[in-house]
Amino acid sequence: MTDNLRVAVVGAGRMGADHIERIHSRIVGARVSAVVDIDAERARSAVAQIPGAQAYSTPAEAYASGTVDAVLLATPGFLHEDALLEALEQDLPILCEKPLTPDAESSWRVIEAEQKLGRQRIQVGFMRRFDADYAKLGKIISGGDLGELLMLHCRHRNPGTPEGFTNEMLINDSVVHEFDVVRFLTGEEITSVQVRLGKASRNAPEGQHDPQQVLLETASGVLIDVEIFVNAQFGYEVATQASLESGIVDIGADHGPVTRTAGRVGGDVTPGFEERFGDAYDREIQSWIDAARRGEVGGPNAWDGYATAACCEAGVRAQASGEKVAIELNEKPELYR
Amino acid sequence: MTDNLRVAVVGAGRMGADHIERIHSRIVGARVSAVVDIDAERARSAVAQIPGAQAYSTPAEAYASGTVDAVLLATPGFLHEDALLEALEQDLPILCEKPLTPDAESSWRVIEAEQKLGRQRIQVGFMRRFDADYAKLGKIISGGDLGELLMLHCRHRNPGTPEGFTNEMLINDSVVHEFDVVRFLTGEEITSVQVRLGKASRNAPEGQHDPQQVLLETASGVLIDVEIFVNAQFGYEVATQASLESGIVDIGADHGPVTRTAGRVGGDVTPGFEERFGDAYDREIQSWIDAARRGEVGGPNAWDGYATAACCEAGVRAQASGEKVAIELNEKPELYR
Amino acid sequence: MTDNLRVAVVGAGRMGADHIERIHSRIVGARVSAVVDIDAERARSAVAQIPGAQAYSTPAEAYASGTVDAVLLATPGFLHEDALLEALEQDLPILCEKPLTPDAESSWRVIEAEQKLGRQRIQVGFMRRFDADYAKLGKIISGGDLGELLMLHCRHRNPGTPEGFTNEMLINDSVVHEFDVVRFLTGEEITSVQVRLGKASRNAPEGQHDPQQVLLETASGVLIDVEIFVNAQFGYEVATQASLESGIVDIGADHGPVTRTAGRVGGDVTPGFEERFGDAYDREIQSWIDAARRGEVGGPNAWDGYATAACCEAGVRAQASGEKVAIELNEKPELYR
Amino acid sequence: MTDNLRVAVVGAGRMGADHIERIHSRIVGARVSAVVDIDAERARSAVAQIPGAQAYSTPAEAYASGTVDAVLLATPGFLHEDALLEALEQDLPILCEKPLTPDAESSWRVIEAEQKLGRQRIQVGFMRRFDADYAKLGKIISGGDLGELLMLHCRHRNPGTPEGFTNEMLINDSVVHEFDVVRFLTGEEITSVQVRLGKASRNAPEGQHDPQQVLLETASGVLIDVEIFVNAQFGYEVATQASLESGIVDIGADHGPVTRTAGRVGGDVTPGFEERFGDAYDREIQSWIDAARRGEVGGPNAWDGYATAACCEAGVRAQASGEKVAIELNEKPELYR
Repeated sequence: MTDNLRVAVVGAGRMGADHIERIHSRIVGARVSAVVDIDAERARSAVAQIPGAQAYSTPAEAYASGTVDAVLLATPGFLHEDALLEALEQDLPILCEKPLTPDAESSWRVIEAEQKLGRQRIQVGFMRRFDADYAKLGKIISGGDLGELLMLHCRHRNPGTPEGFTNEMLINDSVVHEFDVVRFLTGEEITSVQVRLGKASRNAPEGQHDPQQVLLETASGVLIDVEIFVNAQFGYEVATQASLESGIVDIGADHGPVTRTAGRVGGDVTPGFEERFGDAYDREIQSWIDAARRGEVGGPNAWDGYATAACCEAGVRAQASGEKVAIELNEKPELYR
Repeated sequence: MTDNLRVAVVGAGRMGADHIERIHSRIVGARVSAVVDIDAERARSAVAQIPGAQAYSTPAEAYASGTVDAVLLATPGFLHEDALLEALEQDLPILCEKPLTPDAESSWRVIEAEQKLGRQRIQVGFMRRFDADYAKLGKIISGGDLGELLMLHCRHRNPGTPEGFTNEMLINDSVVHEFDVVRFLTGEEITSVQVRLGKASRNAPEGQHDPQQVLLETASGVLIDVEIFVNAQFGYEVATQASLESGIVDIGADHGPVTRTAGRVGGDVTPGFEERFGDAYDREIQSWIDAARRGEVGGPNAWDGYATAACCEAGVRAQASGEKVAIELNEKPELYR
Repeated sequence: MTDNLRVAVVGAGRMGADHIERIHSRIVGARVSAVVDIDAERARSAVAQIPGAQAYSTPAEAYASGTVDAVLLATPGFLHEDALLEALEQDLPILCEKPLTPDAESSWRVIEAEQKLGRQRIQVGFMRRFDADYAKLGKIISGGDLGELLMLHCRHRNPGTPEGFTNEMLINDSVVHEFDVVRFLTGEEITSVQVRLGKASRNAPEGQHDPQQVLLETASGVLIDVEIFVNAQFGYEVATQASLESGIVDIGADHGPVTRTAGRVGGDVTPGFEERFGDAYDREIQSWIDAARRGEVGGPNAWDGYATAACCEAGVRAQASGEKVAIELNEKPELYR
Repeated sequence: MTDNLRVAVVGAGRMGADHIERIHSRIVGARVSAVVDIDAERARSAVAQIPGAQAYSTPAEAYASGTVDAVLLATPGFLHEDALLEALEQDLPILCEKPLTPDAESSWRVIEAEQKLGRQRIQVGFMRRFDADYAKLGKIISGGDLGELLMLHCRHRNPGTPEGFTNEMLINDSVVHEFDVVRFLTGEEITSVQVRLGKASRNAPEGQHDPQQVLLETASGVLIDVEIFVNAQFGYEVATQASLESGIVDIGADHGPVTRTAGRVGGDVTPGFEERFGDAYDREIQSWIDAARRGEVGGPNAWDGYATAACCEAGVRAQASGEKVAIELNEKPELYR
């Protein structure tokens, strides 16, 4: 197939706009044919620079136009369930920005709908799996040369948070990536979550207790600790240290020029997630497009979305209670094995 | 005073022998005048290379000889209480290898005896405070430029353990240093300890569950996690990462030549504690000697020993129960304020 | 313009094949429409996987087909002059893999031909300018915060060389990139070159004296030393250290996971130029395509190719004589100012 | 021998005062018994804090007192020849701060005087050999696992220079250490020296051309380049990179806490030679004392001093001429083989 896959981007906010630009200028084999946003002005503005793309107010209108081969869903999470079910009805390949849906129950309904189609159609936007360092760490762990994985120490630090970023969002928007990474690196489900709240930074806005420490364990007993610190001021950092039976592996170091000046030696801290994970986003979307053209899914699937939603739900409960909260999942359907 | 301080080393095992060699060849202002060991042969062998030193079977004999100005106690911890009380009776400056005593109750009896003397006589062998990196980290934290300290992530990894190293010794012999470091870096007491046991390394001997994760908190709410991993194979590593309100600080990196060969870039891992902390031991003993000549204590004192003994006691209970164990201390006597 | 630029790739050897794959799967706004190779089988094999591309034996045939909007020249350097003049006659945008031509005189003829067109059409394949680290170093230097640039220390190390790699090729194929980098970083022409031959590695094939040290200076007196070491065994390394009036900057460090195992701490050395500069090649070709669609050149131009050819010529003479050889250039035409 | 070696320190300026303090408080087996300085006030002030030490105006007076077992010579270099000959007459162990003497001819006279004694008495103050990193690099090179050494890239950077630091002093006071290091690491004599003067820093005082590049080669053809940059502003740095047949080794990196704050990651640059080489000075003096008590020399000897003086002489000529200057040495006497 030499024709470009025609993609409808649903949601033209920050993340949607990034993906429109990405598909337009860096992704091979696809083009943006439709932008859907309930805010008609925002949709029109998004298509202005994209030759051949049309603006729509609803996915249904876009699908009716007959110009949509695939859907990229970039609306807020609470709108995902309906949009996913609607796109599944069209039997279209879907890239759904995380979360799949905000809770395990609604995620399970999506799982059920996808099962009826008899093939996987949904890829979930956990882009860290496409980061070169996480991919290498995954290979080191699964390669087995260093023995079994025993512990993971994860750090997730942002310089600050946008207005309105709540305490629950520390779990649902930030730690959610660590849930996925832990599942990816261990190849196991997470069985419990606990949250420790200690001394809080005075730089955190009211209503946020920041930083927090999230303690996880997996089915085989791998222990994980996550520092989530979203008002860390100094810059952006996502780093993981893995303790294996005969070695320790670190990923996530900053790189670039090293300068010695004015008594200091070092380099720039990565300022934000775009600089840290921009390449991973490109690879994620390219992988999705390449797989979609073969009728497949090219990354984490709806089961990954469901399991992670269950982690988030438990995480928020753990945050409120201070207790260890068990995570229980439905049996994994055949489609995802 | 130009004469060298005459030191009795009590206990001529590995650590005692190291200190004898250290005082003989690297410490200024002191000389070994007496070596005390219940094993007469071991004591004789230890003094063979030290001109002017005599071997004794008991501290009492050494004190009776009139050749002892100061005592370095390097016997196993369960023998410390009696030896400390005996040396305090002589009103001698004492360096007591950690632990002060194996439990809080006996440590408190030592505290009471020292109080009767009216001045501090006991220094406890927490040598990490004399490590250049820990000292710098302490200054960065107390300097305040990076705001308040919020979390500490500690790693304590050994390549392996000697025969007979029990599960309790992970706390009493290894994590004990982290207890001291946390108290040193935060300037606070530790208020609770919890221990998580997850997947264990197949390289651990029977009876040891290794690695373990030890979770602490301090009076003001600083959260600490410690990975204690004593059969880590790859080498020796003691490292700490501090999260402050506006910056992150790491200490404990290996250094030395960096080589690129056969597809790998890097250097040697520090093989053991002697290489990592040899300089700190030298500085510790020199600081003790210099202070002793002024009639003072040059490092962590008996209160530090008592508080740390209480942490160890709680840590061992937490290891057995899996529960969070609170640590309560007696009121701090005037002498140690 | 929404149509893809139709690119003829001339030369389907290793580099040509890489570029065909690159344009096919990673470059937006272009497609390979023609592959030209005198070896008809090689051309046919190259187009087999590229829908819509045709194989040709000569550029003339490709141009006659009316399917060529731009030319990527990837034949050996000694064939470049004729191919460039032929493509300039077609007034096509050209990306010419380095060198422009093998000597300054023939390069100058190309310059003269391009001047007649009245606009720049040729971009030369010095892809290092598109490497993120070199780009940042360039900005640091030109930014001026660290004062004037005084010295550059360049390292160019390969694990080994292909069969038939001659002593002159150390200059013409390897150091040529350093000539370009020095001109790029200093914004100046190189005025002299000297080559020191010392102790040679026993891993160098007969006829190669390896490593060599190449000493350059620029118009304002910046001193440059280059270690060129093409049988360095350990891996691939291209690194530069810049000494400025108030700071030192290093680029070219390896990165990726850092592992501690078996007494060693470190990571993998970059194995080859594809891993080191793969991203730079992508960016280079994308920049060329984007500029070509605007009728412009998106990188180093024919003047850069000419000046570098003069450096290579002088470098090879310096290699033979051991003496410092001056480099003199024709006056820079208006078109390139 | 249990008595301390009684050391006369000749010259009580900055370096002499450092050594007095060092011997007093950190060196085992020695004590300062005499301080000699033509400035009587300076000598008196130096001994004020050293119990048992006497001040003298001339070495002769100190020797006559019968309290001198060894001599540490810390006067300016032009005074060394007479002082060395006088101390050799006393048959005393001598540590002579570099240089042995300012030129090869006078150094040779010292060599002749020492030969008459029939044993080595003079150790020269090239303390870098006692630096842990240089020692390890030496072992890596001589170990042979990485093949033959081919090139050395040396960096010697100071933040600034004291008043009156001349252009010749760049060679005689700074590069002199590199001459010694190169001889130490290669185990060979240096056969030629060339100096390149390029763009100069505006931070250099009048009369200094800074930085300079010094090019050396050894008997077997190892090529060395040295950047000497004594007004480098940013801090102090002494680093060496060795290119061997199958590997590259770097020493001299800064270490200590690594901080991420305000968008930057890194640590402190070593501020000066005391911080960089303080430990090496201690080890040097201890090695000298230990050897002196056995009647031996514990480090670089008079031949090393002579050969280095010849390098300096040639270096200063090369600095003036811009030409490559050959270095020729007298035949090495039996005593130094």
